[in-house]
Amino acid sequence: MADKKQKQKQKQKRRRSDSDDESELPFKSILKPDPAILETLKKLLLATTTASSSASKPLTLSDLNLSASCREVADLSLSSVQSTIETLILQVTHSILSGNGFGFQVPSRSSSNQLYVPELDRIVLKDKATLRPFAHMSSVRKTTITTKILALIHQLCLKSIHVTKRDLFYTDVKLFQDQTQSDAVLDDVACMLGCTRSNLNVIASEKGVVVGRLIFSDNGDMIDCTKMGMGGKAIPPNIDRVGDMTSDALFILLVEKDAAYIRLAEDRFYNRFPCIIVTAKGQPDVATRLFLRKMKMELKLPVLALVDSDPYGLKILSVYGCGSKNMSYDSANLTTPDIKWLGIRPSDLDKYNIPEQCRLPMTEQDIKTGKDLLEEDFVKKNPGWVEELNLMVKTKQKAEIQALSTFGFQYLSEVYLPLKLQQKDWL
Amino acid sequence: MADKKQKQKQKQKRRRSDSDDESELPFKSILKPDPAILETLKKLLLATTTASSSASKPLTLSDLNLSASCREVADLSLSSVQSTIETLILQVTHSILSGNGFGFQVPSRSSSNQLYVPELDRIVLKDKATLRPFAHMSSVRKTTITTKILALIHQLCLKSIHVTKRDLFYTDVKLFQDQTQSDAVLDDVACMLGCTRSNLNVIASEKGVVVGRLIFSDNGDMIDCTKMGMGGKAIPPNIDRVGDMTSDALFILLVEKDAAYIRLAEDRFYNRFPCIIVTAKGQPDVATRLFLRKMKMELKLPVLALVDSDPYGLKILSVYGCGSKNMSYDSANLTTPDIKWLGIRPSDLDKYNIPEQCRLPMTEQDIKTGKDLLEEDFVKKNPGWVEELNLMVKTKQKAEIQALSTFGFQYLSEVYLPLKLQQKDWL
Repeated sequence: MADKKQKQKQKQKRRRSDSDDESELPFKSILKPDPAILETLKKLLLATTTASSSASKPLTLSDLNLSASCREVADLSLSSVQSTIETLILQVTHSILSGNGFGFQVPSRSSSNQLYVPELDRIVLKDKATLRPFAHMSSVRKTTITTKILALIHQLCLKSIHVTKRDLFYTDVKLFQDQTQSDAVLDDVACMLGCTRSNLNVIASEKGVVVGRLIFSDNGDMIDCTKMGMGGKAIPPNIDRVGDMTSDALFILLVEKDAAYIRLAEDRFYNRFPCIIVTAKGQPDVATRLFLRKMKMELKLPVLALVDSDPYGLKILSVYGCGSKNMSYDSANLTTPDIKWLGIRPSDLDKYNIPEQCRLPMTEQDIKTGKDLLEEDFVKKNPGWVEELNLMVKTKQKAEIQALSTFGFQYLSEVYLPLKLQQKDWL
Repeated sequence: MADKKQKQKQKQKRRRSDSDDESELPFKSILKPDPAILETLKKLLLATTTASSSASKPLTLSDLNLSASCREVADLSLSSVQSTIETLILQVTHSILSGNGFGFQVPSRSSSNQLYVPELDRIVLKDKATLRPFAHMSSVRKTTITTKILALIHQLCLKSIHVTKRDLFYTDVKLFQDQTQSDAVLDDVACMLGCTRSNLNVIASEKGVVVGRLIFSDNGDMIDCTKMGMGGKAIPPNIDRVGDMTSDALFILLVEKDAAYIRLAEDRFYNRFPCIIVTAKGQPDVATRLFLRKMKMELKLPVLALVDSDPYGLKILSVYGCGSKNMSYDSANLTTPDIKWLGIRPSDLDKYNIPEQCRLPMTEQDIKTGKDLLEEDFVKKNPGWVEELNLMVKTKQKAEIQALSTFGFQYLSEVYLPLKLQQKDWL
């Protein structure tokens, strides 16, 4: 009897909210006190920092003797981009003046020219390139577009301003005809110049937000992300104006969706477990990918990912981790190594007793995407991921992060995530 | 000759950039010095403040003797929402105990129950309501859902937390079956309780960003929007935690799209012409609409809108201005009165010599939407808008804000907008 009372007292002690149904939450009782979980996180951080300092320099193509057969762009300064364009145009002028006309050597970005390098754990571009001569019926338009884009980028360098792809398109609608044409040549130009697309000062619409234990400068303004209320700070579209990152976080929590982000931001989860919370609100955009990588590289923090338990959740994880095929030429700058899959994982569905009605049946397309993922190198190299994905395809069930709301709106921040961290339950 | 030199000197003086093609920009030469434009803006601000202080209290339904035949919700505190729910459930209990079973009186939100009130310049709900009895085959499910939603909202009140619609849905997937059902009842419940949907602490994903001369508090943190770099501050999803707005801006610039927003943020347009720049990146979401209204009401600033020159640009303006049909019950809290249409207006296309190839032909659907808009009361009451829309439908041409990039990437911030402001060219 006394024992029972003792237990009840302990239960009450553990309650973080004044609501009376909290203690009934599944698995809440096995949660250790926060300091114990923080110890676990500190060990993870130490392991991450040690790993990144012992590996000191990340592997490059030349370490693997691949620099001759593969191609990667570098992160160039605005003035380097400018002078590279000037050198290129000087060559063109010489060629014209010597009566040879002109053309551009354009690296191929087709899928047949792409390669997954397991040692680097990302997709890179092979070395195939094609000549784009001006004096040829089939390439005269594309060569003209290329020249025009080079001129526009040169202007951006001189003025040191950023524009969108749409802005570029509208500078000469007659020539470009539709935006896909100017967009495609833009990537060609980045490859040709050997720089990233961001180096061209052409940016995409910003989508991501960040909140938590991070201070950084955006275009000269110091931003303290613990003081950004619930809305968080919009991730800047131009990474080159982001700098001076400092943080006392133990990890970065990468969240797939906005709803989970809002929950964690309102609960100020980052104050209970010091972390930086970041989301691209769905499909990762270039700005968020660059921002995540910059955080990882400068702060040397472990990255834990919280995505839906469906093939697209894993796909999103893969884009952050090893890049998209479309921009493989820039994978070194766009990808964040060593992202851990925290949840929601297919095995969590049973483990956390997610009710049947909160699970969704996978469509034929889902199952096909899942099976395709099983063939991808970046999945194969991680046996834990293969196991999880096999389970998903076998059970034909998926679930969103929001499914946890079935146990109460704050189950995610109060029980699920703390328990995951306590149990080091990441892959 | 001396005269010519003098003019050239003046031209050089006016240049804001070191690039040599700037002085060639169309209409740049008629731009007055900034202080003259600022004078114009100060007059606009004065007129706006005077108008809002002389009208002191905005018209309400009861001023128009419409309070009996129309219905509007009020902005209630969390504790009022809580006690209203408790009173309602007490009534239900009484009814059950007296052997009468129970049901809810639910206001109709169908389009036949909606009314545009020209004096208020927004859509309101008429007074039709239907009984939703529990003991009836056709309504038992909906009544159960209504009761469940009431219970969930009551929980949110007790805990003082915010959740998304998706979170709500997942609390009882078996009952709700699909999210459209819980979403619809959520709006019913707001109408029944006579409060706004935000008062229910159910929020939508945040989309909007704000930058410029505004300081406000978000969940207790003070945010200075002049120090938000280029990315700006994400607009908080929960307006009830936003407050303490102060500003030295002369106007609010409401921008339809992200690309134009980025241009203006990078150029720090708000420092040249003190303003607050806000965008919902396309379709206005509830959070941005609430935020805009709050700024307008607290700061009493004129609002100038920069949208695409197509029917959807005007439609977006109308949603900010007089509300959407779906949430007409809450139009008083969601709409911002007296938004001026700054540009891009159909007449600007010729006025600013937008090249033919940067204009797009309107599709059949575009033309139909345009003609439908001409029948809308909120357009009809503004003869200037009718004229512009007629021109659009007649010329069958549309253009995006980005079309201005044809004159240079910074034409928008360096010439077009300053000239618009100088010429008071808004409707």
